[in-house]
Amino acid sequence: MKIINKSDLKSLKRSVDQGTEEQRKTVQEIIAQVKQQGDKAVKEYTERFDKAKLDALKVTKGEFEQAYDSLDGEFVEILKEAAKNITAFHEKQRSTSWFDSSEDGTILGQKITPIDAAGVYVPGGTAAYPSSVFMNVIPAQVAGVKKIVMVTPPDEDGNVPDGVLLAAHILGVEDVYKVGGAQAIAALAYGTETIPAVDKITGPGNVFVALAKREVFGDVDIDMIAGPSEIAVLADETARASEIAADLLSQAEHDARSSSVLVTNSEPLAQSVQKEVQSQLDRLPRADIARQSVEDYGMIVLCETWDEAVDTINEIAPEHLEVVTEDPFQELGKIKHAGAIFLGPYSSEPVGDYFAGPNHVLPTNGTARFSSPLNVDDFTKKSSVISYSRQALENNVDKIARFARLEGLEAHARAVETRKERWK
Amino acid sequence: MKIINKSDLKSLKRSVDQGTEEQRKTVQEIIAQVKQQGDKAVKEYTERFDKAKLDALKVTKGEFEQAYDSLDGEFVEILKEAAKNITAFHEKQRSTSWFDSSEDGTILGQKITPIDAAGVYVPGGTAAYPSSVFMNVIPAQVAGVKKIVMVTPPDEDGNVPDGVLLAAHILGVEDVYKVGGAQAIAALAYGTETIPAVDKITGPGNVFVALAKREVFGDVDIDMIAGPSEIAVLADETARASEIAADLLSQAEHDARSSSVLVTNSEPLAQSVQKEVQSQLDRLPRADIARQSVEDYGMIVLCETWDEAVDTINEIAPEHLEVVTEDPFQELGKIKHAGAIFLGPYSSEPVGDYFAGPNHVLPTNGTARFSSPLNVDDFTKKSSVISYSRQALENNVDKIARFARLEGLEAHARAVETRKERWK
Repeated sequence: MKIINKSDLKSLKRSVDQGTEEQRKTVQEIIAQVKQQGDKAVKEYTERFDKAKLDALKVTKGEFEQAYDSLDGEFVEILKEAAKNITAFHEKQRSTSWFDSSEDGTILGQKITPIDAAGVYVPGGTAAYPSSVFMNVIPAQVAGVKKIVMVTPPDEDGNVPDGVLLAAHILGVEDVYKVGGAQAIAALAYGTETIPAVDKITGPGNVFVALAKREVFGDVDIDMIAGPSEIAVLADETARASEIAADLLSQAEHDARSSSVLVTNSEPLAQSVQKEVQSQLDRLPRADIARQSVEDYGMIVLCETWDEAVDTINEIAPEHLEVVTEDPFQELGKIKHAGAIFLGPYSSEPVGDYFAGPNHVLPTNGTARFSSPLNVDDFTKKSSVISYSRQALENNVDKIARFARLEGLEAHARAVETRKERWK
Repeated sequence: MKIINKSDLKSLKRSVDQGTEEQRKTVQEIIAQVKQQGDKAVKEYTERFDKAKLDALKVTKGEFEQAYDSLDGEFVEILKEAAKNITAFHEKQRSTSWFDSSEDGTILGQKITPIDAAGVYVPGGTAAYPSSVFMNVIPAQVAGVKKIVMVTPPDEDGNVPDGVLLAAHILGVEDVYKVGGAQAIAALAYGTETIPAVDKITGPGNVFVALAKREVFGDVDIDMIAGPSEIAVLADETARASEIAADLLSQAEHDARSSSVLVTNSEPLAQSVQKEVQSQLDRLPRADIARQSVEDYGMIVLCETWDEAVDTINEIAPEHLEVVTEDPFQELGKIKHAGAIFLGPYSSEPVGDYFAGPNHVLPTNGTARFSSPLNVDDFTKKSSVISYSRQALENNVDKIARFARLEGLEAHARAVETRKERWK
C-alpha cells in the first residue's frame, strides 16, 4: 500500500460504471419484453442467463422450511439477534406526522405515510448474503410497508441460497421469487401475473441490475446506484497498526475495485500499517482480490497536521469511516461527510456490516456529500396538509391574489377571490 | 370537461417527456463543453440560445437594488410575509441528530449534517416566479446550507426579472448568475471559473434542463423531474360548484398538459361543475391554454360510493388534492398518496402556491406514491454513528466473525478477531 503526502494527492473519485451502449440496449429490450409478456419472458430470461428451467417462480413454504432446517440452531440464533439489533436501531428513525394550529383556525402539517409496496433485490453469486436481506427489508418493515417482495437469482438447479431464505423467513417475508438481473427489476417495476408491482426497488446488483434500475426510475423509486465498497480510517499515533491493517483489508477483500485509505498525521503509524497490510494480505483466502484492490485503490495519505487529515476525510466523503484517536468523540463534529462513522478501537467496520444495528447500505464514491444510509424515511413519503380557515383567507386573500397576478396567473387569483362570495 | 363513470375509467397516468435522441445528444455536448471550457462555453451558449451577450455572468449589487426599487413597497411587504410563513413551516421540518447509549458502553446514533452547497434553477420565460425562489431556497437555508447558488436565464438585453432578483434579495442570496438551460445545470454540477459547483440541484425547467439534470445525477443530487401541474378535488354534495371549477381552472391555466380532475359521488355536483368550468373558462386571459388542458387532461369522475371516490384519489396519487366535504379532517386518514392535501372550502389550492407556508414543489404524475414535497430533509444527509465498547465487542465478536464467515468474507472475521489481543 503506497504512502502519499497529502500535498501530492489528486482526486480520489472513481468513475461510475455506466455500462456500455450494448448493455443498455439489452436491458431496454429485457424490460420491454417483461412488460409485454410477463412471466413468460421472466422464465425465458432466467433459463437463458441463469440456466435454470423453472415451473414456479415463487419460493414455496417447503423450501423455506428446508432452509431453516439446513442451518444449525446456533447460527439461527445469531441471525435473530442481528435482526433484533437492526430493528431496534431503525425503530429510532421513525418520523411522525405533525400538525400546527394557529389562533385564526388554520392548521398546517405534514403527514407521513409508508409506501404501499417495496421490492428488494438480493444478489446471487457464490456467497449468500442474509445481511442484505436484513438491511433492505427491516427499514421497510419498520416504516410500515405492508407488501414486501423479494427477488434473487436461482442457481442452475433452480435453488436459491439457504441463508437468504432463512433471513427472509426470520423476517416473515413470504413473497420471494427466483429471478435476478434486469428481468427481476422489470418484474418489480411493472408486475407480472405472478410477481406484484412495487413502488420502490432497493438492493445491490451487477451492471445489468444497476442499468435496469436507472431505466425504471421515475415509474418507481430506486435507492442509489451502489459503487464498490470503501473504507477510510482517520487515525493518530495512538492507533494499533495491526487493527487498522485488518480493517482496511476487510473492505479490500470485497472487490478488486474496493478502496481502502488510511489518513493520518503520524509517519510511524503510516509505515507500520504499510508493513502490516503486506503481511496480513498474504494470509487471506481472497488475497488476489484484496491485493488488486490495495494496489489500485488503496493508499496511506500522510498529512502535515491533524486538521489537514480531517479535511482530507471530508474531501473523500467515504462510505465507511473509522476514527481511531485518543478521544474520537471530539472529532465527530468535524466530520461533515461520511456514510457511517465508527468511533474508537473496538468499532471495527464489520461490527456495522452484520450486527450493531445501523444499516450497511451506504452512499459510495463521494455521494455521502449528499446521500444517506438506507433508512426508514426511504420507505415513507410526506404529504403537506393545509386547512385554511375562513378568517385566515379573509385576512390574506388580497395578498395571495396580488402575488398570483404578479406571476401572470389570473385563474389562481380568481380561485381564491371566488370565496369572497361567502362573506359578502 | 367530460364526466366519466369510475367503472369506465382507464389509467390516468401520463407519459413523462424523456426528450428525443437528438435533444439528449445536444445536452451531452453542452455538458462536455461547459466541463472543459467553463465560463467561455457558458457565455457562448447563452449568446446562442438566449441571444444575450454577457460580459459578466454574476448579478451585481446595483442590479439587486434596482429590482428592489422597481417594485412598490406594498408588494415587497407581501413577499416578505410569504417568506416568513414559508420559513416558519419549514423550520418545523428540521430533524435532529440522536444518540442512544447502552449499559455496556455502546453508543449508536444518527448524525444530521446539511449539504455544503445547493444550486437552484429558476426558469425564465414570460412570467417571473419569485415563489419558485422562495420554495427552493428557504428549505435549503433552514437546513443550514451555507452556499446557495441561483441560476436563471437572461433576456436578450442580459437582464433577469425584477421579481426573481427581489425574492433572492429578500432571502439574502447573493450568488445569482445569468445562465439557463443545460449549460446552467452543467455549471452548477461541475463549476466554472465564476460559478461555484454545488452538491444538489433543484428547481423546474424545460426539457433541456430536465435532461441535463438526469445526466449529472450521481455526480450531484437532483430533485425529482417535474411533470405538468395537477389538481384532483374530492368533493361531496356540500361543495360549491363555482369554487371547485375555479380551483380546477387554476391548474389548467398553467400548461396545456396540466391535469384537473374532480372525483365525486354526487351527480348534481358533477353536472354543475361541468357547467361552471365552461362559463369561467371563457373569461380567462389564458383561456386557450386552460381549454386545451381541460379537453385533454380534465375530467369529472363520478363514483357510485364515497369509498370508491377515495380509492380513485389514491389511484391517481395527485400532486395537489382538495378535500371539500362536510368534515374533511375525517377523510385525512384515508388519503394515502398526495403531494399536498388542502382541507375544506377555504383551502383553495393557490393558498399553498404562494403564501400559507408548505412547499409548492410537489411530486407529479403519480409519484406521490413514493415521493414527497421538497423539504428540509432534502438538503441534509444522515451519517450513522457506531461506538462499540470493549464489553460489547467481547460479548459479540464470535457471533460477528461467524456471520462474516457464512458470507464468505474471512478478512471481515479477522478484523474483529484482531481485537481479542487487547483482552488476552
